[in-house]
Amino acid sequence: MNTAQSALVEAVRVALGDKAVVTDRHDIAPWESDWRGRYHGHAPAILAPDTAEGVATILALAYAQGVPLVPQGGNTSMVGGATPPADGSALILSLRRMNRIRAISAADNLAVAEAGVILADLHAAVGEQGRRFPLTLGARGSATIGGLTSTNAGGTQVLRFGTMRGLVAGIEAVLPDGSVHAGLAALKKDNRGYDLNQLLIGAEGTLGIITAVTLRLVPAATDRAVAWVAVADPADALALLRRLEAATQAIEGFEIIPGDSLQLVLDHIPGTRAPLAGTHRWHVLIEATASDAQEEAPAALLERLLAPAIAEGQVADAVIAASEAQAEAFWRIRDSLSEAERASGPAAQHDISVPVADMPRFMIEAAAACEARFPGVRASAFGHLGDGNVHFHVRAPAGADPALWYAGDGPAITRFVNDLVVAAGGSISAEHGIGQMKLHELERLSAPARLAALRAIKGALDPRWIMNPGKLVALAPIPRAP
Amino acid sequence: MNTAQSALVEAVRVALGDKAVVTDRHDIAPWESDWRGRYHGHAPAILAPDTAEGVATILALAYAQGVPLVPQGGNTSMVGGATPPADGSALILSLRRMNRIRAISAADNLAVAEAGVILADLHAAVGEQGRRFPLTLGARGSATIGGLTSTNAGGTQVLRFGTMRGLVAGIEAVLPDGSVHAGLAALKKDNRGYDLNQLLIGAEGTLGIITAVTLRLVPAATDRAVAWVAVADPADALALLRRLEAATQAIEGFEIIPGDSLQLVLDHIPGTRAPLAGTHRWHVLIEATASDAQEEAPAALLERLLAPAIAEGQVADAVIAASEAQAEAFWRIRDSLSEAERASGPAAQHDISVPVADMPRFMIEAAAACEARFPGVRASAFGHLGDGNVHFHVRAPAGADPALWYAGDGPAITRFVNDLVVAAGGSISAEHGIGQMKLHELERLSAPARLAALRAIKGALDPRWIMNPGKLVALAPIPRAP
Repeated sequence: MNTAQSALVEAVRVALGDKAVVTDRHDIAPWESDWRGRYHGHAPAILAPDTAEGVATILALAYAQGVPLVPQGGNTSMVGGATPPADGSALILSLRRMNRIRAISAADNLAVAEAGVILADLHAAVGEQGRRFPLTLGARGSATIGGLTSTNAGGTQVLRFGTMRGLVAGIEAVLPDGSVHAGLAALKKDNRGYDLNQLLIGAEGTLGIITAVTLRLVPAATDRAVAWVAVADPADALALLRRLEAATQAIEGFEIIPGDSLQLVLDHIPGTRAPLAGTHRWHVLIEATASDAQEEAPAALLERLLAPAIAEGQVADAVIAASEAQAEAFWRIRDSLSEAERASGPAAQHDISVPVADMPRFMIEAAAACEARFPGVRASAFGHLGDGNVHFHVRAPAGADPALWYAGDGPAITRFVNDLVVAAGGSISAEHGIGQMKLHELERLSAPARLAALRAIKGALDPRWIMNPGKLVALAPIPRAP
Repeated sequence: MNTAQSALVEAVRVALGDKAVVTDRHDIAPWESDWRGRYHGHAPAILAPDTAEGVATILALAYAQGVPLVPQGGNTSMVGGATPPADGSALILSLRRMNRIRAISAADNLAVAEAGVILADLHAAVGEQGRRFPLTLGARGSATIGGLTSTNAGGTQVLRFGTMRGLVAGIEAVLPDGSVHAGLAALKKDNRGYDLNQLLIGAEGTLGIITAVTLRLVPAATDRAVAWVAVADPADALALLRRLEAATQAIEGFEIIPGDSLQLVLDHIPGTRAPLAGTHRWHVLIEATASDAQEEAPAALLERLLAPAIAEGQVADAVIAASEAQAEAFWRIRDSLSEAERASGPAAQHDISVPVADMPRFMIEAAAACEARFPGVRASAFGHLGDGNVHFHVRAPAGADPALWYAGDGPAITRFVNDLVVAAGGSISAEHGIGQMKLHELERLSAPARLAALRAIKGALDPRWIMNPGKLVALAPIPRAP
């Protein structure tokens, strides 16, 4: 711990008490690496305030001392966004003790949750009042509201309800100098200059610390139906989605899954079985919900809408889960795709988006281009077709050495895929953010105007560059390889 | 015209041709004042490029020369946001020649419109393809897409479809140094750092010039119904809205109108008549639409939903327009409120928002507080109750001298009303923006942290402070009266 860090730690201990400071190596260690074990950092201490005032105190002190801070919620970043630098130059600022749900108003369809509230806990709390917070993802048992907001998280219900950006109605945050942005009021209209809330959403903790968020709720679902559908190709899948959306607003999940990914799940995940007989090249998992007994039952709705699609040949085969257990089994296949893939060997994974209409062609052509350019790999994409966002994964040739692959072909493939994404007008980070993992690729692939704007904003709001250093935007242009 | 301006004008003439430069005083004059005649400025020339490249050329030159520019679309600002400074220090940058609709995709529900496209023209063009751009307002015959985006415009359909912020899928803009932000791609998910599109929306041209926008469309409406409803007070009106919204997603207009405002319309606007017999203290105009023949007809829907509200006494009386002509007549009353008020004498007008649930009480209590504090005035609020946004108007005592009123009591009342809004956690500009009209009040009422952040962002992206000077944020803190 350097002198400035020591001074900060002692000052925080005096101001906020012993509970707000963690210096025991054993307690710190689990938070120094990301959950996938790809990034390893070092932090001499964790600061853990339990109020917004405490956060403000810490930031004012850190700003004065010039001590970098890495904010952390559930530490579930996919891009190393919450892992401290390896040189020990930063302390971790944990928001986990700020875990109160300050208010739930069922009548207003609003909840106010502190940054450290775990998503699953919020789901449960609003559920007790007949409401639902309509964003969910695999890490819901660990991911926190502050992190979800700071990364503009997505998930499997974005199709109907949008990402965090659309679900956040207000933000309380502490800016890098310790001043407080009091923006929790849920104003549907507010044109008082630049929208600081929107700027903080997706800023990955580089512009300040979100301490609490006002969230929009929807009525709890009263019924759902889950269908498993086989289609010839992604184009037919998208046409099916458009048919469904033209007829109903009840569709909230629409996940495309290639046949070989399904096969990996059947091969590697115990207890799974194929929902449909026969072999199909593409599959779609569809979920429809109702929140009112007066609405058409989702199962009847899907049956009614899928029948003509089958008759016309747009859908090759389809089954609607006959029970909640079967619905869960269908979703388990979807949720096991990454795990099954990991079990089968190393892969280069990409969370990318292109305009929705272009995605079917991109999925086919980009996979073919990868397989042609890197002989022996298998490329395939699965996920949120209706959002124009898929997880585009390229699996190493059978028998590839993982260490060699991740050091050599893996990054080369990532650059190749990202080039294709940029050529298609897409984004190299659809929902996972930049963190440290995508920093170099963002620099390599962004227009100079865009990078200059990101740096200017960062420098304007965090002039000492102490908030989550080394994430999202680099202090100076990263030198490009010759 | 000063030397730098002359040099810029000549350089633009050479680069973009004579059509891109207007120096005739008669041609400039109409654009030097706002449409309500409250703000009068002076611009030695208008620059009028017709391509994004032309805008980039102009900004690069202006940046190099340090010449301030005031962007202008339809010049329909409610807050003097498009009026140049009086000292002639700025040129007008008109986007009106950039009026192409570059693309409409009915299948994707997207359109790409240049900044100078007039809203009504966009409505017509997408209508021909069975689509609707679901934002409209009184100035639709003049207001342009660039201005609507730069001011995050609202209007009467925000309840269902949101403000421009929710309807913009992509932005092409030129940053102050002439570099181009190419963000038109309609990516539903894109987490590549700070969201520059969201930052430009509502920035009032102070951070760069929006040159084209990708807009979300919805299916064209196939049917609508308009109801006029009498209620006892705003609380009952909000309860009615919640009842309707719990049962249907078809409600897209819900405008509250006080009885005395209706009376002003009946007194001053020829050809209007009260939709309901008898006298009522509060009225609500409700519009429901359908975009599919399979949906319940909106008139039947409203009848079905209003019947129990009448039976329970939540609604005192109601009528559903029996014809499109009658529906238009109901809307004409709503759209004539401001005109009728102007005909009755001077008034201090405020476009404000508070959290939706607090609005009924605010409307009553703030009006009473105004009338108690300023004897003889009449305060009332009308508008978008479901958005938590009303136009809160305070009319001068009968016989007040307009010039004296606007110089003395008017501003005092505005400060009084704005104080009440801030105390209620609301916004002093819900949908009109800050422009030059609200600049002092924004400074007076914002937290120092917020003002510092606005200034820092402005200075970071426009270091010479040449984009729309004197609007939205002041270069230095405005001295406060002792």
